[in-house]
Formats: sequence, structure tokens, C-alpha cells
Amino acid sequence: MTEETIKKHIRNVTDFPKKGIVFRDITTLLLNGSAFHETVNLLLEELKDKRFDKFAAIEARGFVFGGALANLLRKGIILVRKPGKLCAETVRVEYELEYGIDALEMHKDAVKKGDKIVVIDDLLATGGTALSTCRLVEKLGGDIVELVFLVELSFLSGREKLKGYPVYSIIDYATE
Amino acid sequence: MTEETIKKHIRNVTDFPKKGIVFRDITTLLLNGSAFHETVNLLLEELKDKRFDKFAAIEARGFVFGGALANLLRKGIILVRKPGKLCAETVRVEYELEYGIDALEMHKDAVKKGDKIVVIDDLLATGGTALSTCRLVEKLGGDIVELVFLVELSFLSGREKLKGYPVYSIIDYATE
Repeated sequence: MTEETIKKHIRNVTDFPKKGIVFRDITTLLLNGSAFHETVNLLLEELKDKRFDKFAAIEARGFVFGGALANLLRKGIILVRKPGKLCAETVRVEYELEYGIDALEMHKDAVKKGDKIVVIDDLLATGGTALSTCRLVEKLGGDIVELVFLVELSFLSGREKLKGYPVYSIIDYATE
Repeated sequence: MTEETIKKHIRNVTDFPKKGIVFRDITTLLLNGSAFHETVNLLLEELKDKRFDKFAAIEARGFVFGGALANLLRKGIILVRKPGKLCAETVRVEYELEYGIDALEMHKDAVKKGDKIVVIDDLLATGGTALSTCRLVEKLGGDIVELVFLVELSFLSGREKLKGYPVYSIIDYATE
């Protein structure tokens, strides 16, 4: 299965979450066992020879891919969550939205000094949540090895925001 | 690795999400690649000879285990989410909380008539979200094959609420 075949399983939903946005909906891809499996295989191919300790998976769709790959590669998986969801002591990074701010948290004991971390999410858009995740890892003394995504919206220039970090994505949408 | 060994990787956090509750925190288990892998293996052992089409994974920690198992078994995975998270047409089931109500949604095209579904989540507590997930699947004409969980809090009687459905859990906490 090629990238183009995987792309065919992604649904385009207009005006979500608001007017003028075309949302790339991966739930249709996830419904198809073969398409999901082949997508995980492409991410596995990218990561299988990399040396790292844990995934940092971004809530919530990042958990699906993070779970599959952490299990295959026998790595640990850190849950990166919205505020209030984690029960023990956390570190927190805030990031700007179009209107207002949001934040992400990680348990303080999730990363040990020197841990090598791969960040995983379904989507790279503006890069705000991905960069915040890198900062959470670094606050705790970890090192970012790479960031991997299923879908990239390159017209939103997420890679520029993530300059200096290796970034991999399977599928790119270069225009809206 | 036995159930008891897996249990040792679960952290007990007192007074979360509120005073008097002992929260069983699986994020410490997820951090350990071997413990996570062995947990997934026990769920795999339970499911590998069952005939079914898709997982229905409950937001958000259910996505971690659902992702790992759907990939191993080459099944599709349906995301069961809180209201407003899904972008296309949904079905919705409301359930009671201690104070007020909450709801879960699923895309209408996630289940086809006659689809055989396994529900997956990390935790079976009162069974409210699990039962709502069964109802969502059945609203769309699907059949529940089994519900699987990592942790069960049997003192909350979730299995009684789920009477008539096969339920499997790896670890039980029979008292608070």
C-alpha cells in the first residue's frame, strides 16, 4: 500500500471545526484494518533502526498510533495530555491558539534525564502542540530524537516552527 | 509476566479525581515498554481466536490499547469520543454521572449492520461509558462480541451493569 492509497482512506470534511477549514478526517482510515496496519508499518519502517527510549504521544489520536508502535518496538509510551487529566505531579507548557491560550501537561516522572524521546501524533498542522511537547520533554532533561506524524499540512509551516528537530510525515497536503 | 507483576507497575494515587478516591494510575505501566507489551499480550491471548470485525475504543486511554491490538489483529478501530470531537455525522448516547449527565459519540458510518465489535478501554469502573458504547454500536446495527479492560474495580459492580455481555479484565481491585 502506497502513501496515495492511504490518502484515499482519509475523508475530507468541509467547515470543521469551523467555516472555511477542510478537516482531514483519519477516522475512516482507522476503520479499515489493512489501511491502519499499513500506516503503522510505514511509521515502523521510519523508526525501527532509530535508538530511543520512549514515545511521547499527544492526546488523543496520537495515542492510537503511539500504542501500536510502542507495542511493536517494546518502548514505553508517555501520555501528553490537556490540563487536569493527569493524576500525579506534572510539568506544563502553554501555547497560543488563534484566540486565547491552551496548555499541555506531562507527568514529571515520565522522562528521566537523558531519555531519548520520539514524539508521535496523527497530524502536524501549525506545530504548536508538537513544539510544546518537545519543550515538556526538554524541561525534564530528555532529548528529542524525532517527531513523526501521519498527516502534515505543510501550508501551515509546522516544520518551520519545529526547526532543528527531525520531522517525518507519511502524507502531505501542500494546499488547503 | 503475571497479572501480579503487571499490577506492580500501576500507581495508586489518593484523592484523585476527588477526596476519598484511590485512582489506579496506569501511566506508570505505560512508561515501561516490557510491562506495556506484556499487558497487550494478555489482551491478545484473550482475543486472538475470537471472530470480530472492529474495535470500539473509548477515549482516551482506550485508544492506546485499542491501537496496539487493532494493529496486531489487523482490525479496524472505531474512536468513541466525548461530544464535539468527531467531525462527521454521529450517534450519541447520554449517561448519568454522580452530578449531571455526560455523553459519548461515534460516527454513524463507523459500524455497518451486522458488524461484530469488541469494546476496549483501560478501566471498568461503574460501567457507564462501557454500556453507552454498547448502545452506540447496537443503535447502528452492530453486535457486541466482548468487552475487554486492563483494570476492573469490581467493588463498583460494572459487570452487573454489563450483564449479558462477555467481559474480560486482566487485573481486579475488589476493594477500594
